[in-house]
Amino acid sequence: MSTIIDSGRVAEHNDKLRSGLEEDYAALAGMLSRRGVDIEQLTAKAQKFAVALPSWGAGTGGTRFARFPGRGEPRNVFEKLDDCGVIHQLTRATPGVSLHFPWDKVSDTQALRQQAEAHGLYFDAVNSNTFQDQVGQEHSYKYGSMTAISAATRAQAVAHNVECIELGNALGSKALTVWVGDGANFPGQHNLRGALERYLESAREIYAALPADWHMLIEHKLFEPAFYATTIADWGTSFACAQSLGDKAKCLVDLGHHAPNTNIEMIVARLTQFGKLGGFHFNDSKYGDDDLDSGSINPFQLFLVFNELADAAEREGAGFNPAYMLDQSHNVTDPIESLMSSAVEVQRAFVQANLVDRVALRGFQESHDALQSAQTLKHAYRTDVSSILAMARLRNGGAIDPVACYRASGYRDQMAEARPAKAGASSSGIV
Amino acid sequence: MSTIIDSGRVAEHNDKLRSGLEEDYAALAGMLSRRGVDIEQLTAKAQKFAVALPSWGAGTGGTRFARFPGRGEPRNVFEKLDDCGVIHQLTRATPGVSLHFPWDKVSDTQALRQQAEAHGLYFDAVNSNTFQDQVGQEHSYKYGSMTAISAATRAQAVAHNVECIELGNALGSKALTVWVGDGANFPGQHNLRGALERYLESAREIYAALPADWHMLIEHKLFEPAFYATTIADWGTSFACAQSLGDKAKCLVDLGHHAPNTNIEMIVARLTQFGKLGGFHFNDSKYGDDDLDSGSINPFQLFLVFNELADAAEREGAGFNPAYMLDQSHNVTDPIESLMSSAVEVQRAFVQANLVDRVALRGFQESHDALQSAQTLKHAYRTDVSSILAMARLRNGGAIDPVACYRASGYRDQMAEARPAKAGASSSGIV
Amino acid sequence: MSTIIDSGRVAEHNDKLRSGLEEDYAALAGMLSRRGVDIEQLTAKAQKFAVALPSWGAGTGGTRFARFPGRGEPRNVFEKLDDCGVIHQLTRATPGVSLHFPWDKVSDTQALRQQAEAHGLYFDAVNSNTFQDQVGQEHSYKYGSMTAISAATRAQAVAHNVECIELGNALGSKALTVWVGDGANFPGQHNLRGALERYLESAREIYAALPADWHMLIEHKLFEPAFYATTIADWGTSFACAQSLGDKAKCLVDLGHHAPNTNIEMIVARLTQFGKLGGFHFNDSKYGDDDLDSGSINPFQLFLVFNELADAAEREGAGFNPAYMLDQSHNVTDPIESLMSSAVEVQRAFVQANLVDRVALRGFQESHDALQSAQTLKHAYRTDVSSILAMARLRNGGAIDPVACYRASGYRDQMAEARPAKAGASSSGIV
Amino acid sequence: MSTIIDSGRVAEHNDKLRSGLEEDYAALAGMLSRRGVDIEQLTAKAQKFAVALPSWGAGTGGTRFARFPGRGEPRNVFEKLDDCGVIHQLTRATPGVSLHFPWDKVSDTQALRQQAEAHGLYFDAVNSNTFQDQVGQEHSYKYGSMTAISAATRAQAVAHNVECIELGNALGSKALTVWVGDGANFPGQHNLRGALERYLESAREIYAALPADWHMLIEHKLFEPAFYATTIADWGTSFACAQSLGDKAKCLVDLGHHAPNTNIEMIVARLTQFGKLGGFHFNDSKYGDDDLDSGSINPFQLFLVFNELADAAEREGAGFNPAYMLDQSHNVTDPIESLMSSAVEVQRAFVQANLVDRVALRGFQESHDALQSAQTLKHAYRTDVSSILAMARLRNGGAIDPVACYRASGYRDQMAEARPAKAGASSSGIV
Repeated sequence: MSTIIDSGRVAEHNDKLRSGLEEDYAALAGMLSRRGVDIEQLTAKAQKFAVALPSWGAGTGGTRFARFPGRGEPRNVFEKLDDCGVIHQLTRATPGVSLHFPWDKVSDTQALRQQAEAHGLYFDAVNSNTFQDQVGQEHSYKYGSMTAISAATRAQAVAHNVECIELGNALGSKALTVWVGDGANFPGQHNLRGALERYLESAREIYAALPADWHMLIEHKLFEPAFYATTIADWGTSFACAQSLGDKAKCLVDLGHHAPNTNIEMIVARLTQFGKLGGFHFNDSKYGDDDLDSGSINPFQLFLVFNELADAAEREGAGFNPAYMLDQSHNVTDPIESLMSSAVEVQRAFVQANLVDRVALRGFQESHDALQSAQTLKHAYRTDVSSILAMARLRNGGAIDPVACYRASGYRDQMAEARPAKAGASSSGIV
Repeated sequence: MSTIIDSGRVAEHNDKLRSGLEEDYAALAGMLSRRGVDIEQLTAKAQKFAVALPSWGAGTGGTRFARFPGRGEPRNVFEKLDDCGVIHQLTRATPGVSLHFPWDKVSDTQALRQQAEAHGLYFDAVNSNTFQDQVGQEHSYKYGSMTAISAATRAQAVAHNVECIELGNALGSKALTVWVGDGANFPGQHNLRGALERYLESAREIYAALPADWHMLIEHKLFEPAFYATTIADWGTSFACAQSLGDKAKCLVDLGHHAPNTNIEMIVARLTQFGKLGGFHFNDSKYGDDDLDSGSINPFQLFLVFNELADAAEREGAGFNPAYMLDQSHNVTDPIESLMSSAVEVQRAFVQANLVDRVALRGFQESHDALQSAQTLKHAYRTDVSSILAMARLRNGGAIDPVACYRASGYRDQMAEARPAKAGASSSGIV
Repeated sequence: MSTIIDSGRVAEHNDKLRSGLEEDYAALAGMLSRRGVDIEQLTAKAQKFAVALPSWGAGTGGTRFARFPGRGEPRNVFEKLDDCGVIHQLTRATPGVSLHFPWDKVSDTQALRQQAEAHGLYFDAVNSNTFQDQVGQEHSYKYGSMTAISAATRAQAVAHNVECIELGNALGSKALTVWVGDGANFPGQHNLRGALERYLESAREIYAALPADWHMLIEHKLFEPAFYATTIADWGTSFACAQSLGDKAKCLVDLGHHAPNTNIEMIVARLTQFGKLGGFHFNDSKYGDDDLDSGSINPFQLFLVFNELADAAEREGAGFNPAYMLDQSHNVTDPIESLMSSAVEVQRAFVQANLVDRVALRGFQESHDALQSAQTLKHAYRTDVSSILAMARLRNGGAIDPVACYRASGYRDQMAEARPAKAGASSSGIV
Repeated sequence: MSTIIDSGRVAEHNDKLRSGLEEDYAALAGMLSRRGVDIEQLTAKAQKFAVALPSWGAGTGGTRFARFPGRGEPRNVFEKLDDCGVIHQLTRATPGVSLHFPWDKVSDTQALRQQAEAHGLYFDAVNSNTFQDQVGQEHSYKYGSMTAISAATRAQAVAHNVECIELGNALGSKALTVWVGDGANFPGQHNLRGALERYLESAREIYAALPADWHMLIEHKLFEPAFYATTIADWGTSFACAQSLGDKAKCLVDLGHHAPNTNIEMIVARLTQFGKLGGFHFNDSKYGDDDLDSGSINPFQLFLVFNELADAAEREGAGFNPAYMLDQSHNVTDPIESLMSSAVEVQRAFVQANLVDRVALRGFQESHDALQSAQTLKHAYRTDVSSILAMARLRNGGAIDPVACYRASGYRDQMAEARPAKAGASSSGIV
């Protein structure tokens, strides 16, 4: 497996921090042991945890007002893969990459696959894009794609999704994530039911093209780009569609795609109960689909999501395997740094959720001890598992402090030189 | 049919206002005629419109902070029926009454039925109550009812619902509305999935007791009284449960039970599309479940809900017949006045939705003319159909201006005398 | 005054609709007369109403995901002025144009002023832009403008605002609207207080450059482009800053810039009470800063805002003169059509608010008659004043049905030919 | 100082847990020392931290739907003081008690003061109550108190507040918290500006009665009990009023009284910047004014509030001394347990905020290093300071694990016997 940052530099980095980490780890081990918890089991779990990277997250994002580019941004999918390689090299928690077509479309899929393998990466769910018009595209999506009034436009959207499946299949992916911006900006613009009927008609055609071992992940979102009525606006609609389509259709939960005050962890519980949880786009938000770094705004909520996932894993056994992906927009940070620290935050929530004493929790729940039930979760959440995460990275061959190691490597400076910004380029800040 | 307010007084009231109404009606008829609309068809529809009254709405409501009682509040279901009789007498739009047990439980259901018939009223959906403990109740609902950990508590909740069905059956009702406050105040308090599993188990037992021609209406609500995780919190959960239970289970939409910014009319479209719209609790709100008078805060939203209902009626034909009920808390107004004017507001939205030029709308939608699509709805909504509503009342034997007629009647003063407040009574402001 | 659409065409349009309008107007006059209202006084008020157009609204807007351009979009401020001229020609309600620099910056301000005058237009508040980087700009606003840590960046932002004042002064404007996107995406990114201290320091320098008869309008916004903490996020901050700066500083209210559930009309009441209401950016929204057409989502709210303005006008007298401007993003409609119909919607709310029987309202308020207080507002709001608005346009020399007249004129087709889209242009969808 | 739980029991409890605590404390000391932090300085700060208890929080709360009483609830202020005494005895973090009149009004204030002193308690801000009608009260607050149309009602509300000051003065309090539910349920019910003018008129009279060293704390709240327009709805209004009243008027921030998505820590920053932060009502919420246990829903937000307070303390020095109070409704937990654990959560946030490396943070902020700025806060927040808090309690004479110690003490059982529930009592669940 090739490494993009010189492995000697990583070793040097780790050598400097190792003894401090070992002391912290031992201290935590002692604390956990006094609670009856074996730190090694947690570290082993942490070592196996993985969350996929979004290829589009490697560039700087933006808003409708502006995009302020960063230095050395990747200009194509091969460069994006390099950046993802760095992230995985240092965190050892991000072996999957989620591609977005046509942005990441290449003619030579084998070359792409080989580069990924060289970085120890594989391809997770692929994403279609019918929320933008591409140069030379025959039919515009201005008034909808899968829900378009025009049959030809719908056929074009279906064909693009089918092509995504083919591309993904060639790359080893096993799922297609379908997010459409389709919707209305004004009352009356759409016949609300008619739009969903057309969506389902299109979706059935895409579904029919899925290989046997693939999933179709339906991603809902409350608003933006549609500002009055988004066709797939909430988990209820996503669920009803997934049910209508069949077993291979599942629901994808993006943490930023809900109405204010929504209890997202309960949606996770509902989807697992009814067999339709397909996966996640992790990020964080305070207002809308802010696409901020995972765990940066409400880390307790991220933990509570993983608490539901831990409960589901216990109930469902090995078959329970939703897709975990990051989906963020990095407007004011170095995308590589944000993706590294976000992967660590998601992994942190996973480990903390595994720290919950589920036997005690059940006991408190059954005796109506709301206070101790809550404290049981908080006890796990409060535990600073940083040294477990660092030890997992170290043991997996990554960096104890990925951001510090990355900064010391000079990678961004090298890329700034190797990847000069295209003059006049204002690549979109899409997420 | 007995009338509670002297019919001579109503006639006198109408006589004074009739000529003005006729002039306004003629003026509107002319305006509509210039748009190609026959006012008489709308008036005929208005005359047939009905929305049921909540028996509990006849008293003054309150908040957890205080209840400020009004004068002459009804002290039992017979007095509530009298008040409902007045409302229907003057509006001719509220022939149904929705009862709430055990609040409205009487031993002599025949007497109740006879009184209702004397007022020209029938009984719409009955409501169970497992969100409060009743004096002498064996098991408390403090920690849940249909979702309770304790099998005995769940059995008690089920038995109460079955009794409600029996009482309703004796009264001629055809539906049971089930709203439970069950939920958790703290993360961890509930196993979220376990709670819904127990809910479904209880619901199946209730469902089994439904007569063949009955519906079970599942009412969701985002929060209050549970403040972290309500078991039936959103339409997605309600829908999944209704599907799981069977054809007789449907979803009830209360306009105040959603997350901020939710597009409620789209939920209506979804539920009709998937065959699960059971009915409505109409009210209005700005913040939470504020239970304000229908149409008082966002009348355009109420219109848009009825626009979806008109679309559904066109698609589904005569079989489409969701239950319409008011559900409001009257904290600062005379409940009779609020219920009268709210019934009129709901009827107004119904008539305006029937004014929408659906052929033109479809044409604009199909040609992506978002502006004219929106204006087509606004054109109908902007039309002041007040004189149609007044004429419908007049022709149906009601009052041209129900609030003015009611005030002139002295009914409240008589009730203030006839129904002295119980000393120390602080009847709850429940809605 | 030059007209852009042939005045013969407008006359022809009006001739066809005149008799129908006159009948509707007479019918409404009769209805109003029965309520003791003189229609002519309302029409006279409607004729004097004005709301300014945003130059940037003449182009098609977009989201961070995509912009789907329209045909014949204006490519510079002169073409934008032509489009504004059409809007005012047909609506007679939009004599002001609000410019945005540097987008609308020209070297020959006199030519611009002359063109405006030829269209019967004048220049309302000018807007500065420090939320984007311009080509060749020395210091980037990526990390803030008026709040930037770097003194040089702040000085650049101040200098730009001062230049805007100078440009506006040359054009006859009397106000500078200052909206900055400054803020933080992450907790910790900003010292929240430090950022506002720097803002105030910059603002004081701009304020010092205001001519004696100018206002500085501070525009707050909850979020976007900053997603954790926007420096000028709410009316409280805007108000505190305006107070700190001095009498010429006022607050500007954009209807889409508030937290969910906010009572915007109460903010209007507060700002007028404390002497700090400077003006409005009118639009509508369901979720965030959706920038939809005014009155398209919640028309009652727009009416309630004007109800407060009518109350303030009564209290404050002639001196009360806040700036009214549209600020919308037209993503799926023809911007000219949306701006015309939005101007009419704002004017509608103004006329309806003038229909409120304030003496009766005060009486109901003083006798705690909440129901009739509410009905007094609804009575005015329900009145369909469309024919008053059309008559005001007709009398002022505009079109009875501006959208229909505009469509019939073929203006957009001509512009599509005259203004070919720049190849590869992806002009931003900023609003 | 008397103790309510036998001090031998507390000692026994501590003896069992002491060695485990000491090991955890030593482990944490080592971790902190590797970060250059002296644990003893934090522990010393923790030992001095105090947050006041709400007397009304000692009873079980409820909602408008129901109240499910707990066992052994206090029936008067003396019993509430006993419960507060227990909480302070075990946590050593709650020496203040905030009283609510007339609920807590006694004729013998000296007896009350002596009992407080016997428990080591003093009286923090006193609260007035004009949101309920008391038996025998001359004028009802149904339509407002300080904002009432009726001058006599306003005078009654003012007189009650003045009496609260007098009672508080006799008890050693130094502040009056004024929260009024005044507002409107319907558009039109209030003249919005008129209501605030009357509020200010009443407030000025109350302000005039403040002793020289007192503060008047104005508490705003978005909604409930008023559901359309609350007179003191947001910090902007609170701030404008406090400014208008004078230096002794300050703003009180209740964490649950804001619109969805509001950045509360920024409000804290604004109020400190403009010299008007008076204090806090701590609690937590997910939807509205849910009044849940502090830190139970969004603990990171609580930390961020204390991060602003730490920043302010650094800037303002010793003079910066806002009032810290809990204000919660305990519907499903033992109020004593919730108050103990909530006090600990608030103290935890305080200690974590004191762990923030402010020099490093400033450096990151000044170099636009958003990622490391955010991580600097997260680093402090992630630190599990539980053993610091336990050690602070132990050293101050409290219990290592207050809830466990309390449960072992049998206090609730004793109270259940000593304080039989009043038959038919349905004491309100007000918070």
